[in-house]
Amino acid sequence: MITHISPPLGSMDLLSQLEVDTLKRTASSNLYHLYRNCSLAALNAGSQTDNSKELLERYKSFDINVLRRERGVKLELINPPEEAFVDGRMIRSIQANLFAVMRDILFVNGQLSQAYKAQQLSPDSPIHLTNLVFSILRNARALHVGEAPNMVVCWGGHSINENEYLYGRKVGNQLGLRELNICTGCGPGAMEAPMKGAAVGHAQQGYKDSRFIGLTEPSIIAAEPPNPLVNELIIMPDIEKRLEAFVRIAHGIIIFPGGVGTAEELLYLLGILMNPENKDQKLPLILTGPKESADYFHVLDKFIQNTLGDDARKHYSIIIGDPEEVARQMKHGMSAVKESRRANGDAYSFNWSIKIASDLQHPFEPTHENMANLNLHPNQPPEQLAAALRRAFSGIVAGNVKDVGIQAIEQYGRFKIHGDPAMMKHMDSLLQGFVAQHRMKLPGTAYTPCYEICS
Amino acid sequence: MITHISPPLGSMDLLSQLEVDTLKRTASSNLYHLYRNCSLAALNAGSQTDNSKELLERYKSFDINVLRRERGVKLELINPPEEAFVDGRMIRSIQANLFAVMRDILFVNGQLSQAYKAQQLSPDSPIHLTNLVFSILRNARALHVGEAPNMVVCWGGHSINENEYLYGRKVGNQLGLRELNICTGCGPGAMEAPMKGAAVGHAQQGYKDSRFIGLTEPSIIAAEPPNPLVNELIIMPDIEKRLEAFVRIAHGIIIFPGGVGTAEELLYLLGILMNPENKDQKLPLILTGPKESADYFHVLDKFIQNTLGDDARKHYSIIIGDPEEVARQMKHGMSAVKESRRANGDAYSFNWSIKIASDLQHPFEPTHENMANLNLHPNQPPEQLAAALRRAFSGIVAGNVKDVGIQAIEQYGRFKIHGDPAMMKHMDSLLQGFVAQHRMKLPGTAYTPCYEICS
Amino acid sequence: MITHISPPLGSMDLLSQLEVDTLKRTASSNLYHLYRNCSLAALNAGSQTDNSKELLERYKSFDINVLRRERGVKLELINPPEEAFVDGRMIRSIQANLFAVMRDILFVNGQLSQAYKAQQLSPDSPIHLTNLVFSILRNARALHVGEAPNMVVCWGGHSINENEYLYGRKVGNQLGLRELNICTGCGPGAMEAPMKGAAVGHAQQGYKDSRFIGLTEPSIIAAEPPNPLVNELIIMPDIEKRLEAFVRIAHGIIIFPGGVGTAEELLYLLGILMNPENKDQKLPLILTGPKESADYFHVLDKFIQNTLGDDARKHYSIIIGDPEEVARQMKHGMSAVKESRRANGDAYSFNWSIKIASDLQHPFEPTHENMANLNLHPNQPPEQLAAALRRAFSGIVAGNVKDVGIQAIEQYGRFKIHGDPAMMKHMDSLLQGFVAQHRMKLPGTAYTPCYEICS
Amino acid sequence: MITHISPPLGSMDLLSQLEVDTLKRTASSNLYHLYRNCSLAALNAGSQTDNSKELLERYKSFDINVLRRERGVKLELINPPEEAFVDGRMIRSIQANLFAVMRDILFVNGQLSQAYKAQQLSPDSPIHLTNLVFSILRNARALHVGEAPNMVVCWGGHSINENEYLYGRKVGNQLGLRELNICTGCGPGAMEAPMKGAAVGHAQQGYKDSRFIGLTEPSIIAAEPPNPLVNELIIMPDIEKRLEAFVRIAHGIIIFPGGVGTAEELLYLLGILMNPENKDQKLPLILTGPKESADYFHVLDKFIQNTLGDDARKHYSIIIGDPEEVARQMKHGMSAVKESRRANGDAYSFNWSIKIASDLQHPFEPTHENMANLNLHPNQPPEQLAAALRRAFSGIVAGNVKDVGIQAIEQYGRFKIHGDPAMMKHMDSLLQGFVAQHRMKLPGTAYTPCYEICS
Repeated sequence: MITHISPPLGSMDLLSQLEVDTLKRTASSNLYHLYRNCSLAALNAGSQTDNSKELLERYKSFDINVLRRERGVKLELINPPEEAFVDGRMIRSIQANLFAVMRDILFVNGQLSQAYKAQQLSPDSPIHLTNLVFSILRNARALHVGEAPNMVVCWGGHSINENEYLYGRKVGNQLGLRELNICTGCGPGAMEAPMKGAAVGHAQQGYKDSRFIGLTEPSIIAAEPPNPLVNELIIMPDIEKRLEAFVRIAHGIIIFPGGVGTAEELLYLLGILMNPENKDQKLPLILTGPKESADYFHVLDKFIQNTLGDDARKHYSIIIGDPEEVARQMKHGMSAVKESRRANGDAYSFNWSIKIASDLQHPFEPTHENMANLNLHPNQPPEQLAAALRRAFSGIVAGNVKDVGIQAIEQYGRFKIHGDPAMMKHMDSLLQGFVAQHRMKLPGTAYTPCYEICS
Repeated sequence: MITHISPPLGSMDLLSQLEVDTLKRTASSNLYHLYRNCSLAALNAGSQTDNSKELLERYKSFDINVLRRERGVKLELINPPEEAFVDGRMIRSIQANLFAVMRDILFVNGQLSQAYKAQQLSPDSPIHLTNLVFSILRNARALHVGEAPNMVVCWGGHSINENEYLYGRKVGNQLGLRELNICTGCGPGAMEAPMKGAAVGHAQQGYKDSRFIGLTEPSIIAAEPPNPLVNELIIMPDIEKRLEAFVRIAHGIIIFPGGVGTAEELLYLLGILMNPENKDQKLPLILTGPKESADYFHVLDKFIQNTLGDDARKHYSIIIGDPEEVARQMKHGMSAVKESRRANGDAYSFNWSIKIASDLQHPFEPTHENMANLNLHPNQPPEQLAAALRRAFSGIVAGNVKDVGIQAIEQYGRFKIHGDPAMMKHMDSLLQGFVAQHRMKLPGTAYTPCYEICS
Repeated sequence: MITHISPPLGSMDLLSQLEVDTLKRTASSNLYHLYRNCSLAALNAGSQTDNSKELLERYKSFDINVLRRERGVKLELINPPEEAFVDGRMIRSIQANLFAVMRDILFVNGQLSQAYKAQQLSPDSPIHLTNLVFSILRNARALHVGEAPNMVVCWGGHSINENEYLYGRKVGNQLGLRELNICTGCGPGAMEAPMKGAAVGHAQQGYKDSRFIGLTEPSIIAAEPPNPLVNELIIMPDIEKRLEAFVRIAHGIIIFPGGVGTAEELLYLLGILMNPENKDQKLPLILTGPKESADYFHVLDKFIQNTLGDDARKHYSIIIGDPEEVARQMKHGMSAVKESRRANGDAYSFNWSIKIASDLQHPFEPTHENMANLNLHPNQPPEQLAAALRRAFSGIVAGNVKDVGIQAIEQYGRFKIHGDPAMMKHMDSLLQGFVAQHRMKLPGTAYTPCYEICS
Repeated sequence: MITHISPPLGSMDLLSQLEVDTLKRTASSNLYHLYRNCSLAALNAGSQTDNSKELLERYKSFDINVLRRERGVKLELINPPEEAFVDGRMIRSIQANLFAVMRDILFVNGQLSQAYKAQQLSPDSPIHLTNLVFSILRNARALHVGEAPNMVVCWGGHSINENEYLYGRKVGNQLGLRELNICTGCGPGAMEAPMKGAAVGHAQQGYKDSRFIGLTEPSIIAAEPPNPLVNELIIMPDIEKRLEAFVRIAHGIIIFPGGVGTAEELLYLLGILMNPENKDQKLPLILTGPKESADYFHVLDKFIQNTLGDDARKHYSIIIGDPEEVARQMKHGMSAVKESRRANGDAYSFNWSIKIASDLQHPFEPTHENMANLNLHPNQPPEQLAAALRRAFSGIVAGNVKDVGIQAIEQYGRFKIHGDPAMMKHMDSLLQGFVAQHRMKLPGTAYTPCYEICS
């Protein structure tokens, strides 16, 4: 089956001859494959598969070609997933996402990165990274100049239970009634629930500028395709730039219950918020869930208190089972954000001034060596400890549940960690708590630490 | 508590001095009370009460005054329901509905009816009634000239089970994906479910002109307040004009499972569609529900076959458990509607040419005398039989479950019906079937007919 | 030639069967002719004819029929003026005006007047007249609720010289640069020049809501058809309601040089503004023209000073040869108007509170008897004197230049006026001044008064 | 005086830190000066100066700084020209132009040229030049995908007489009535007249998407600042890219009377249109003027016939004194353009397929050596002869009237041209004709050729 798809109004609709050449199958094989696979993931939004490999296997014969036509660019799709169509016409949100993929791939890989090279900037310098994040978001028209702060980033697991899903919808409805917009990581679960609720809230308010941003990156878009509510899909080049985009575009952050990944994200945020350079930053951060999920936050809160100290806790508030209060506090926080941005002359739409330390801008590889070199002692600035804990955390989770980590443990034995014994004990408790709440899929029944402390 | 509310953009925002006087408490006591009570019902949209009396009792101190201000009219509300507000600001859909109430009350009761009197038209002439229905809808800006047929009227019970509710949402989603709009009777249940589904479908298609019309009338608005999705509230002056409005604004009709009221509505439609003057009318009519509700339609279908004959059945199709097929057929039917309207020079937005016989334009009062005079024999045109059956049905239901009917039966004995015995037997079966499906709230357990046949 | 014309977006596009019948040729012959002739005038906008009779003669075979179609109403035109078309397609501003004619004729003559009758209001009561003016303007969507005061009414002659025309354009440009809108009497000359200038000013400011209102009435639309800039044509039922509409819709008034008619209008305004009930009204009134036309205003100003006293002069300012200053003062006056309306709770879009005395709401017929009964003595409230002067003026002009007046003088001799001799002398001077400036087309060369004073 | 100016809605409103640094005074002195001077020219739109030097002299103290603020970028202006303001607020078209300057300077000089370098393309390769022109226009949002061909490029002198100006307005009005848009070289005279007329035509048609593009470049913007109607200012990097932009964005071209420059432009176009590779191109080209200017085109037409042959004449038509016919032919030509673009799969908004030979893409420097090397003989393809004639022309004009040319002639004697004697005679006649029509400002009275033929 071959279909031709036109761009939706207002999207990337005109390409130069050079740009079309860039995306040709024959041109740069890598770039073409990246483009093809991300497009396939975007087309797959309708289905419930969350397995990248299976998806790619299933649509081996899928192909995509960019054509120039009299009314602008067209896409030629060969054997696309049927679920993307209704009565033979592509669903428009999917169509929009398809062109968002093209826009971001072209922008990031083609034009922009070259421009930076030409200017002789180290592509890894903080200023370069931040400007790149900014440029991608601006090119995606995601930075709205005329709007007062209203963007709530929602984090949480993508496979939450029904109770938590319904709670997420209620929070979303209350946010929507207050005309706040939602930005999530693009997939189902806690990424979808607040959008669904907010959509109804927006409808009740006759609010026409509903923004449901899905921020993703090439390695996860296939596993977590955009849910049907996402009306702005943005593909960042990698996971750290995606995290940075979340932080700089957010006017407030809500964390719903999730797995260990969610806990890791909280540590990332604390690593930023506890940085003394950010002491004047306003970024409301609320941890919330239904009554039945209170334990998750209790355990997490305890761990933070025990490791980073009480000071860390003033950067977030925990609200259990009260969607209206969550939305009320978030709305209220927006005024503070606005005030602070105006006072600093910082953009409402992009938080230039928040400091993201270099160790948070770069990825962590959990090798035995890297794990051994972590500094997990209390005698350091808390923001550095938070960053270190996030890494330890990341490594331990890998050692417990990820293929690469489990194999490393089998081959080289347990991670040797030079950590404070008390701190390590708290980490044990936290993980055991997650196990008890069935938030960690472990191979066996009993939880066996994959590390040992060499204090 | 006193609040001042401005009209939303595009609504009735300028009143003349004479119009403001019309709605003053002191002016015409009846009109003021009608206005006040409908406004209160509109304000109550948030709550779950479906009991008019209770509502009016609870907000005895509620009062509403129309004020003229520099930027147009304002409403002064005294002690309005709190649920209509979010953080002290009225929810905009409720605000819009509040001004829709003012618009329709003013238009119908003030200006227009007078105009017709002046023109010496009998207010009950069919041409008058139809022109009045047209004028109310046009004044409410509900007739969109530029649009091809896309309005699906959905009927069904307001207290359906969860399974049927979810099914209604799925049908709505499929309708929404095909950019069809929804018009219902304004309340919860089958009136809300398709709107919820369509809202998501519209979002997926980036369809911005979502229309969710709630057609109601003063005697039921309090019991079935507009659900949160309704974005066009229209208050018709009485129940028959509301039915006529449904038929003339519809480009297609879907009937979901409901109680006996729903069955009655189907007979009303058949009374119209079987009229020979309507033989060229195109009005797709689909009866649909989830697998579990197949019996409801089976019983109904059987009854129609047995009483009105096989010919009656070609006016509708029954689709069980296939939301996509429902939407596909409905979408497909729209082309036929468009073609037929164009061929006849009839308006897309208002079906002038469909004939509604005078006995369907007027209400039926189920007295013993009226019941005795019904002609329930097969030897008459089927559309007249359909209309007569609808009335018998209406009377029998009253005799079984409505206060006024039960008392009449107690006082004067069973209704004497001059009907065809076979036909009456089928009616018995139908009602027994509803009892078996728990769709009729009966005082006792066994179903005792409230009528006897005097063939 | 037969053409079918659809309504432009947003205009009256749906008619009921009853409404279509109202405008049928066969229905009410008078209403149909009114409708046909006004439509013909609107179609004639392109041509330069300013002679009603000639126009009607030339298009004797013109006919217009209202048809109902699937996308709303259509107009069938038989033998319309060719100038209304470009390459066979009707110019859209003319198309819009054509539907404005239908809207106003239908509204005024059909529905509304009946409604008022039904309400047993005397159609001549001041409250009725004002409500009628309001309703016509609202129905024409000419009352914009969301806008701060910005409507400048411009009066002046329709056959001014080129110098004055260019000056009018410059004033218009300065008004347009300040985002003010223009309302005039619809025709060429001083009615067109400020609109042309303002259109460029609006373009320079990227101002998209340009409003160029042409207020006319059936007896003059043929002689002064809407100029090409008019984008809101409104047909008031008669000359006094048109004058009232000007006053109530205006946020400021500019008087350009004109003939005696213009002087008459100034007296009408002074009759209103000097009314003690209007002492708190804010309505900036500026008399302006190029240097070469300074005399016109000098003579007029002198006359007012001499008859109504110095107090009268504080209601207007005269600015000669300074377009920027005119616009600056007018813009500045808007704030005062806004402030005053807000303080009084009066609508920005319609001045309900300004008092128009009953003798200004009704027309004056210049018979010998009426002229003899005028009270032209200083011993009366100045606003009444202003009204009386306006009438005397109107009569004298008729006696000098209008057919009916000249014949009356020939038949019955000069008007006998019981006036103050000094006052009459000033009137003589004023008229002589106009003669000297070639603003009065007189049959002979020397100016002979058509009246005598019987002090 | 210091003023802060915000960007108008929809313009370049967000800059990265790196971009702001680029435009800083201290950064790259050249770029800053280019930016400052173009900004000053844009601000000067109101004044009538057409002398760059004088302008720069007069506003020596003018300075401009780019600031980042919470709602996006702001410009700080120090001592800007007063004429850019109305009552202290900047005229919005000037404000828009100011940000257009920033947009184009930043885009061309910063980002894009670097990107091309990085891709190792020779910046002078034809594909690079065309892609650059495309990218600049796209970045300026000047390429509208959804629109059928409607852009008429108008060329002609900027100091034409009043008669020609009025004619230009009439042609513009007829184009506007047909909903065609205008693109000119930005200044007064023939660049302004058709825009003024089209603005009224658009208003008559209620056409809201009026586009009045001014295409300029840094070296002439100061001498020919955008006229008040220009609503899209685009600054191309140099004169050849500006010419290429004209040709690729045009759907039709009208040439009004002008000086020798206008004749030169016609030769440029013929050099393109006579290229055999362009034989299937559709590009309606009309030469038009009022009756009184018929000679100008007669002389030109004769010259072309005599030098390039009759074939050259089929590429244009000459229409004298008939604005309606000009517009009718142009509108009619649009269908052919549309058809041809669709058939070739070329974009409506940008003519990729028209071939511009390399010698037309590059500038010509009229040195004695270059002049001596021109091939002005008939024995070559006519498109090459056209290009050569354009150069000879350019050189001779320089030798007659431009400082640099006159000095060169004084120093080195007359240009030696190796040309066909007959051809040279025709050139003499043409220039003499222009002298006779007062279209060439020559130092003395008699025209003395600055060249001699060395056949």
